[in-house]
Amino acid sequence: MASCLISRQLSLCVQKNLWLSSAGCRYVSKAAAKTQVEYDYDGPLMKTTVPGPRSQELTKQLGDIQNVGAVNFFCNYEDSRGNYLVDVDGNRMLDIYTQISSIPIGYNHPALLKLMTNPNNLSTFVNRPALGILPPENFPEKITESLLSIAPSGMTRVQTMACGSCSNENAFKSIFIWYRNKERGHNTPSEEELTSCMTNQGPGCPDLSILSFMGGFHGRTLGCLATTHSKVIHKLDIPSFDWPVAPFPRLKYPLEEFSRENAQEEARCLEEVEDLIVKWRQKGKPVAGIVIEPIQSEGGDNHASPDFFRNLRNISRKHGCAFHVDEVQTGGGCTGKFWAHEHWGMDDPAEVVSFSKKLLTGGYYQKDELQADKPYRIFNTWMGDPSKNLFLVEVLNVIRRENLLEEVARSGKALLNGLYELQAQYPGLLSRARGQGTFCAIDVRDAATRDRLLLQARDKGVLLGGCGDQSIRFRPALVFKEYHVHIFLNIFNDVLAQYK
Amino acid sequence: MASCLISRQLSLCVQKNLWLSSAGCRYVSKAAAKTQVEYDYDGPLMKTTVPGPRSQELTKQLGDIQNVGAVNFFCNYEDSRGNYLVDVDGNRMLDIYTQISSIPIGYNHPALLKLMTNPNNLSTFVNRPALGILPPENFPEKITESLLSIAPSGMTRVQTMACGSCSNENAFKSIFIWYRNKERGHNTPSEEELTSCMTNQGPGCPDLSILSFMGGFHGRTLGCLATTHSKVIHKLDIPSFDWPVAPFPRLKYPLEEFSRENAQEEARCLEEVEDLIVKWRQKGKPVAGIVIEPIQSEGGDNHASPDFFRNLRNISRKHGCAFHVDEVQTGGGCTGKFWAHEHWGMDDPAEVVSFSKKLLTGGYYQKDELQADKPYRIFNTWMGDPSKNLFLVEVLNVIRRENLLEEVARSGKALLNGLYELQAQYPGLLSRARGQGTFCAIDVRDAATRDRLLLQARDKGVLLGGCGDQSIRFRPALVFKEYHVHIFLNIFNDVLAQYK
Repeated sequence: MASCLISRQLSLCVQKNLWLSSAGCRYVSKAAAKTQVEYDYDGPLMKTTVPGPRSQELTKQLGDIQNVGAVNFFCNYEDSRGNYLVDVDGNRMLDIYTQISSIPIGYNHPALLKLMTNPNNLSTFVNRPALGILPPENFPEKITESLLSIAPSGMTRVQTMACGSCSNENAFKSIFIWYRNKERGHNTPSEEELTSCMTNQGPGCPDLSILSFMGGFHGRTLGCLATTHSKVIHKLDIPSFDWPVAPFPRLKYPLEEFSRENAQEEARCLEEVEDLIVKWRQKGKPVAGIVIEPIQSEGGDNHASPDFFRNLRNISRKHGCAFHVDEVQTGGGCTGKFWAHEHWGMDDPAEVVSFSKKLLTGGYYQKDELQADKPYRIFNTWMGDPSKNLFLVEVLNVIRRENLLEEVARSGKALLNGLYELQAQYPGLLSRARGQGTFCAIDVRDAATRDRLLLQARDKGVLLGGCGDQSIRFRPALVFKEYHVHIFLNIFNDVLAQYK
Repeated sequence: MASCLISRQLSLCVQKNLWLSSAGCRYVSKAAAKTQVEYDYDGPLMKTTVPGPRSQELTKQLGDIQNVGAVNFFCNYEDSRGNYLVDVDGNRMLDIYTQISSIPIGYNHPALLKLMTNPNNLSTFVNRPALGILPPENFPEKITESLLSIAPSGMTRVQTMACGSCSNENAFKSIFIWYRNKERGHNTPSEEELTSCMTNQGPGCPDLSILSFMGGFHGRTLGCLATTHSKVIHKLDIPSFDWPVAPFPRLKYPLEEFSRENAQEEARCLEEVEDLIVKWRQKGKPVAGIVIEPIQSEGGDNHASPDFFRNLRNISRKHGCAFHVDEVQTGGGCTGKFWAHEHWGMDDPAEVVSFSKKLLTGGYYQKDELQADKPYRIFNTWMGDPSKNLFLVEVLNVIRRENLLEEVARSGKALLNGLYELQAQYPGLLSRARGQGTFCAIDVRDAATRDRLLLQARDKGVLLGGCGDQSIRFRPALVFKEYHVHIFLNIFNDVLAQYK
């Protein structure tokens, strides 16, 4: 089968100008020389290995205050531009990880800097309101211009929150409240419910559950963490809820070549989902909602077909569970559509869609009937941050003005084709190239090699991230163009040449 | 007893110039005419009832997007200054609620506006980093200048988070990890732990608990919510953990007059705490931590004595539970000390102190041994927001430069004395005046009257908040001076005169 894959990749190469003319050669693309947009640099520039001496010194300082085991290096955000992140030692890296996929239009975009210099905006930054009780005058307008202008199909209601975890926590709460009101058939809880909930007991605090998927990631606060199943390090030692965990399809890539096997695998998982819903209902812990990512991200960039999601949506309807699509990492345009679930082609994709990261503010959309029945049920002091909404309006303007979704589709195609070619060149090292838009990934033969590759690429000026057990994930900003793809491929090819 | 109270209050009045010379009269204090600091207004100015027509229109608009049941009115944050919040109908109110206690030095403080116009700061706002992996160069310095400069006794480690709930959720996680590592005696988990945690089961996800107090409030995400017991509306329909809930002392006020009864009540609660710890250990759900507010805020401004907290701290030590002091609402100077727990006079007050609101960023301090043993155990994408740290540095500078803690002590005394006098004047209406610094409260005869009083005061230009079943809470900014107290007392006295 490996040789079959290789021949397919090779034929792909031929179709697209065979840019890797010989193993390990340095390919210089014409596109790579293309004029850069004004606020971008023209390529990486490395002065030290990373972390350099200044980063090491600062890491030591910070080590007295926090656990710094995860710190990569320290950044000079002032000097960073567009797709390039500059560190404190003057190294300039092509950033294909973008702060864990959370920088939408690159560093220091002129449109965002301009917004900061408008004196009318100052008070929004200086006076953070309690949005739920005392919103600013322009709040409905800014929400309409920003979040509502990109609302998923069938949704006109949106609630902002401070981060992705809070978004999912509150979305779960909306789901529980909605589910219990359905069960009750009216909104008046019993005296026993009112009393028992104050000490965390049933029936006031009911034994409801959220069904999630193995490999899923939905955040790390205790409610979210009960639906997160990507890595031991997130979950060990933390009390959790006895909620059902379904298998997520483990597909073969490229998807189009394994459609029959993949369809079987998806059917198996869907069957398991229904079994779990029945089983948990029998256990007295009914499934109030199903939460899923359109592409499992932290868990290893695991895809499933539009059919899988449509069928899952139908199962949720059949069993009266809310369907919650977590677009915290997939949302914001990186798959080539604003929401990854748009690829499913559904008019009624979900009851809840949550977001954060590239949207700059956390939050979730919901169908009308999911809105909490009373004020203060979904509430906290800040409920988001209007200064982030200001930025988001500008980000969306830039996305539209610069046709960035089309750019993403174009760069994504170039990136994925490049990855196909690389895995054909390095069959024992790389496999399972996959992606949608620029939201791509590739597997490395083992975790240690993956981690080494990431460091080697970084030292050559390309910043990437890992995910799952042995994957590399690509999470560039939406301003990552085709010529950036070629800059990356050139450098990565050099790194891989050492593995020949 | 009531008459005894009144005579005490009256004697207090005499001592302090007897400003309420006759019932219902309008008292014009000399202090009220004192020169205002430049960025403050000289008093409330009301043009409409609240919400006015523009607020009503905007509320209707927002109602199509969100539940607006909690919206009071819409604000003009640009025109708001110092202690005065201006609404969209041009009403200017003396703000003694400050966005649920989250505006530290008033609206549009010049020091904060100046920070915004410094071009060196722009990139901090525009490029939000993933702090846990790629911190900005000035991060250790800003944390040192801000949060570490006010660290509670015995604590040199601090972790920022985006909001109060996330702070407490992650503090709980730190506590659970620390507790399990203590139980294990080493850091290597068993194979069974590693496997079981991935599906939310024990022993990997252990049955540990956090002990909290009836009336406490620690946030609304699922972990926090299991320790929150202030109102039904927060908890109903949301699944929870079977964690122990101890009684919080229900003291009589003024505290110094009921020291014997209050000490008995506190002893009763402490006994119950120990019983619960033993009981939950026997149930197989050991108490890993105790979480408590120095003054229960949302739950009704319930105080306890320094002795109570010292004894509770000792109980936590005796049983090997972490002691977590939640200063989300009490922290930041409003009690006259930077942290309310400083009033206990302890060198080793806690294992964890969490904060948010007036600190502008969420987060928590912890003792060295509580720091997570490995990177990525306490982690999320943003882990706070460095732009908030910038503001906090300035806020702390202002607090020091303007001696605001002393001001708080002074205004707080004037406020509490004023409340004592009012409750003496209106014994059937007001009772239980209490407070520390400007963190004061008073009870109203019933919830309906309390709610009506809040609206009447608002229509006369004073913004207050409720808490508990029938309390009014006072949460002014730290720039609330003695003359603001008198402005408030004058207006409130007018409102109360209708109840004669």
